[in-house]
Amino acid sequence: MDWRKHVRTALDGRHPGLGHRVELFLHALILYSALSMGIETLPHLPGWAATALSVSEIVVVAVFTTEYVLRLVTAPAPGAYARSFFGIVDLLAIAPFYLGLVFIGAGIDLRAIRALRLVRLARLLKLARYTSAIDRLAAAWRVVKEEVIVFGMVAMIVLYVCALVIFQFEHDAQPEAFGSIFDAMWWAAVTLTTVGYGDIYPVTAVGRIFTVLMLFVALGIIAIPTGLVASALSAIRAKEAAAEEREPPPATPHD
Amino acid sequence: MDWRKHVRTALDGRHPGLGHRVELFLHALILYSALSMGIETLPHLPGWAATALSVSEIVVVAVFTTEYVLRLVTAPAPGAYARSFFGIVDLLAIAPFYLGLVFIGAGIDLRAIRALRLVRLARLLKLARYTSAIDRLAAAWRVVKEEVIVFGMVAMIVLYVCALVIFQFEHDAQPEAFGSIFDAMWWAAVTLTTVGYGDIYPVTAVGRIFTVLMLFVALGIIAIPTGLVASALSAIRAKEAAAEEREPPPATPHD
Amino acid sequence: MDWRKHVRTALDGRHPGLGHRVELFLHALILYSALSMGIETLPHLPGWAATALSVSEIVVVAVFTTEYVLRLVTAPAPGAYARSFFGIVDLLAIAPFYLGLVFIGAGIDLRAIRALRLVRLARLLKLARYTSAIDRLAAAWRVVKEEVIVFGMVAMIVLYVCALVIFQFEHDAQPEAFGSIFDAMWWAAVTLTTVGYGDIYPVTAVGRIFTVLMLFVALGIIAIPTGLVASALSAIRAKEAAAEEREPPPATPHD
Amino acid sequence: MDWRKHVRTALDGRHPGLGHRVELFLHALILYSALSMGIETLPHLPGWAATALSVSEIVVVAVFTTEYVLRLVTAPAPGAYARSFFGIVDLLAIAPFYLGLVFIGAGIDLRAIRALRLVRLARLLKLARYTSAIDRLAAAWRVVKEEVIVFGMVAMIVLYVCALVIFQFEHDAQPEAFGSIFDAMWWAAVTLTTVGYGDIYPVTAVGRIFTVLMLFVALGIIAIPTGLVASALSAIRAKEAAAEEREPPPATPHD
Repeated sequence: MDWRKHVRTALDGRHPGLGHRVELFLHALILYSALSMGIETLPHLPGWAATALSVSEIVVVAVFTTEYVLRLVTAPAPGAYARSFFGIVDLLAIAPFYLGLVFIGAGIDLRAIRALRLVRLARLLKLARYTSAIDRLAAAWRVVKEEVIVFGMVAMIVLYVCALVIFQFEHDAQPEAFGSIFDAMWWAAVTLTTVGYGDIYPVTAVGRIFTVLMLFVALGIIAIPTGLVASALSAIRAKEAAAEEREPPPATPHD
Repeated sequence: MDWRKHVRTALDGRHPGLGHRVELFLHALILYSALSMGIETLPHLPGWAATALSVSEIVVVAVFTTEYVLRLVTAPAPGAYARSFFGIVDLLAIAPFYLGLVFIGAGIDLRAIRALRLVRLARLLKLARYTSAIDRLAAAWRVVKEEVIVFGMVAMIVLYVCALVIFQFEHDAQPEAFGSIFDAMWWAAVTLTTVGYGDIYPVTAVGRIFTVLMLFVALGIIAIPTGLVASALSAIRAKEAAAEEREPPPATPHD
Repeated sequence: MDWRKHVRTALDGRHPGLGHRVELFLHALILYSALSMGIETLPHLPGWAATALSVSEIVVVAVFTTEYVLRLVTAPAPGAYARSFFGIVDLLAIAPFYLGLVFIGAGIDLRAIRALRLVRLARLLKLARYTSAIDRLAAAWRVVKEEVIVFGMVAMIVLYVCALVIFQFEHDAQPEAFGSIFDAMWWAAVTLTTVGYGDIYPVTAVGRIFTVLMLFVALGIIAIPTGLVASALSAIRAKEAAAEEREPPPATPHD
Repeated sequence: MDWRKHVRTALDGRHPGLGHRVELFLHALILYSALSMGIETLPHLPGWAATALSVSEIVVVAVFTTEYVLRLVTAPAPGAYARSFFGIVDLLAIAPFYLGLVFIGAGIDLRAIRALRLVRLARLLKLARYTSAIDRLAAAWRVVKEEVIVFGMVAMIVLYVCALVIFQFEHDAQPEAFGSIFDAMWWAAVTLTTVGYGDIYPVTAVGRIFTVLMLFVALGIIAIPTGLVASALSAIRAKEAAAEEREPPPATPHD
C-alpha cells in the first residue's frame, strides 16, 4: 500500500492496522480545543493554568496544521480537498493563529483575530459522523426544505413589518427603548420567539393591542416549521421501519 | 395585441417581450419602499440621506400611482379591480402621500398620516406569488379553518375571563400594575403566550395559584391550532407526493 | 302545546314561532354581563356610567332570575335540572347578588361577594353550542384523556420535586426570593411553562445547573399533552372526512 | 405458604388476604414524606409543628428501614435486589438519616446530609405502577430514543458554542453579566428554552444579531424531540387501538 493511502486511511479511521485510533485522537483534540476556549474565559485563572492553555493551544494548532498538510498532500485531488467544505474549515481553524503571529509585530489589535478562532468550532461538525440519525435528519430536511425556507423568509418579513409598526406606536412614548428600527426589530425577535427578556416592551395602549394581535397571528408562522420537521422525521422513520420489516438490513457496515 | 393588453401583461410579468422585467422592478420598489421606512427611523441621519429619502419617497409614490392608474385603465373591468383586495391595497399605498400634501397647508398634525403609510407594507403580499408553498399553506388553512377560528374565539374569551379573575385578586395588592381590565388583559396575553416580559405579574398567593392553573389549562388551548396547521400541512404534502408518484407533474410552468 | 313546552322551547331556541330569538337575547345578555364586569374596573368612571352599570346589573340579574325560575318550573324533572351542570351555574350566577342584599344590612365586607360574581362567567360556556368543532374537540379529548391526566399528575409531581430541590440550593443565597416551598413552586411553574417573568430566578452555580437540566427534561413532559391533543384531533378529522366521502352527511340540522 | 412469600407479596400488593393494603400504606407514606419536606420549608412554623415533623421523620425512616430489611431478607436473591434500581433507591432514601446520626457527634455540617434526603423523592417513581399509560410512554421512548439522545447531545454542543460566541461579543460591554463561559451558558440555556428571565441579555448590536439568528435556528433543534415523542405516542396508540378492534383485550388483570 502507498504511504499516501496509509496516511489518508489513518486520518479517516479506515486504516487496516490503526483502525479508528488516529481519527479518535483528532476528534478528542477537537473537543479539547472547544473546551479550552471555554476555560480561557474563566476569571482569576492561576498563572500555571494560563501557561498550560497557551502551550496546549500551540500543540493543538501544530497537530491541526500537520493534519491539514497531510490531507492536502495525500488527497487524490489536493485542489478539490482545499475547496471542499471541510477543507476550508480545516484551513480556517488554523489560519487565525498564524495571522496573530504576523500581526503581533505590527502592533495591531488582536481581538478580531481571537474572535476568528471561533471558526475552529466548525470542526465539531466532524463528530456528526458517529451517528446515523443525522442521515435521517438530512432526509427529513430535504422533504420540508421548501416550506421551511418560505416560512423563514416570511418570518423575516413579519419581523421587519412588526418592528416598523411598533416603532410608530412606541417611539414617542419611549424614545430611549425604541430608538431606531434596530431596537424595534430586537424587540420583535425577542417577543415573537416568546423569550421576552423584559428589557424592552410596549407601554402605549395601541402598542399593546398590536403586540397581542401580532403574537396570536405570528406565533403560528414561526412555530409551524418545527412541527413540519418533526412530522417529516416520523414519516421517514415509519417508512424505514416498514422497509426493514420487509427485508433485513444488509450486513454492509455504515460509514 | 391591444396596448392595454401589452401594459397589463407587462405589469403582471406575462408580457411576451418584456417577460418578468416590469414585475421584478415593481417588486424591487416594494422592497425598497419597505426598507426606506426602516432607514428613516435611524437617529442622527445626515442631511443628504434625509433628502435622498424624501426624493425617493416621491419617486416611489409616483411609480405606484402610475401603476395604479395603468391597472385601473387597462383592467377588463376597472370597477372590479378597484374593489379587489390588491386594488384597495394599491390605493391605500399611495393615498397617505396625497392626503399629506392636502393637509400640509391646513396645519394639521401629520403623524397619523405617517402611520397610515404603514399600509403600504401590505404590498409585500404581492411577493408571495414567487412560491408554490403558499398554495399548500392555503390548502392546509382551508382544512383547519373552522378549528382555528373556534380556538381563536375561545382564546379571546379565555383571555378576557383570566383578566377579570386576576384583576379581582391583584388590584388591591398592586393598584398601579393592575390598574384596570386593560392592564390585566395585557398581563394575560403576555403570560398565555409565555412571553413573560416581567413588567407585570401576580404577587398574591391566590393570584399565583390561579396563574399556574391558568397556564396549565390555557397553554393547550392556544398552542393547539399551531399543531393542527402543521399536521394538516404534512397530510396535504403526503397526498401531493402520492399523486406525483402515480403520474409525473405536467410540463406546464407554474404561475 | 302546553305553555311549559312553549317556554322551554323558547329558552332553548327551538320554539316554532319565536325560533332562536329568546336564546339569542339571553346569550347577548351573558356577553353584556361579562363585558360590564370589565368596564366596572376602569378607573375614573363618570358618575352616570357607574349608575348605568348598577342599573344594568339589576336588570341582568332580574332576567337571569326569571330564566332560572322558568327553567325550574317548566323542566320535566325540576330536581334533575337544579342538580345539572348548567342548573348549578345558573343558580351561582344570580346567588351572589341576593347574598349581597342580605349582607349589606349586616355590614359585612362585600369584596368576597363581588369575587363570587365571577362565577357568572361560567354561563359563557352556553355560547359553545354555536359550533360543531366543540364536538370534535370533545371526541379528541376522550381519546387522549388518560395520557393527559397522567401527564398532568406527573407535571404536578415534577413541579413539586423541582421546587423542593431548588429551595435547598437557593434558600440560603436568596432568603427573600426563595422564602418557602410556595415561592419555589411559583418559580418552578413560571420556569417550566417558559413564561420566565424574571421576578425570581436562581443565582447559585448548582441552582443554575439544576435549572438547565430541569428545563431540558421537563419541558418535554409538559409540552407533550398539547401535541397529543393536536394529533388526536387531526386523526378524528381525517376519519370524519373519510366517512363523508363514503356517504353525504344527513340533512338533519345539527343542534 | 412460606412467611417470606407472605411478606414479599404483601409489600408488592399481591397478597391473597391483605391485597393492596400494605402497598397503599407504603405509597401514602412516600407521598407524606415528600409533602413533609415541603412543609418543613415554611417560615415561622410553630414549635409543635416542628416537633411533629421531626417525630414523623423518625417514623417514616423506621418504616422505610423495616421495608428495606424485609425486602432484603425475603427476596429470592437478596444481592440482586440490593443492586437493582429500586433497591439502591430504597437504601439511599434511608441512608442520610443514619449518616446524620453518626455525624451529629462529629460536629460536621449537616446541610449536605439534608440535601441528600432529596434522594428519597426518587421513591415517588414507585407510584408510576398505578397507570398503564406509563407503558405506552416507555414504548414511545424506545422508538424515538436514538433521535432524542442525538438531539440532546447536539443541543448541548449548540448551547456551548452559542455561549462561546456570545461571550466574545458581550464580555467587554458587560463584564459583570457575562463574567465567564458559565454565565454565557446560563444565558444560552435560558434563552434557547425561551424562558428569558431578563437577568442577563445581550446589548451590543452584533450580540443581538447573533441572538436572533441563534433563536431561529436553534429553537427547532431543541423543540423537535418533543414533537417526535408526541407523534410516536400517537402512532403506538393507533396501533393498540387497531389491535383491540381485531381481538378484545384478555381478561388477565394488568399489574
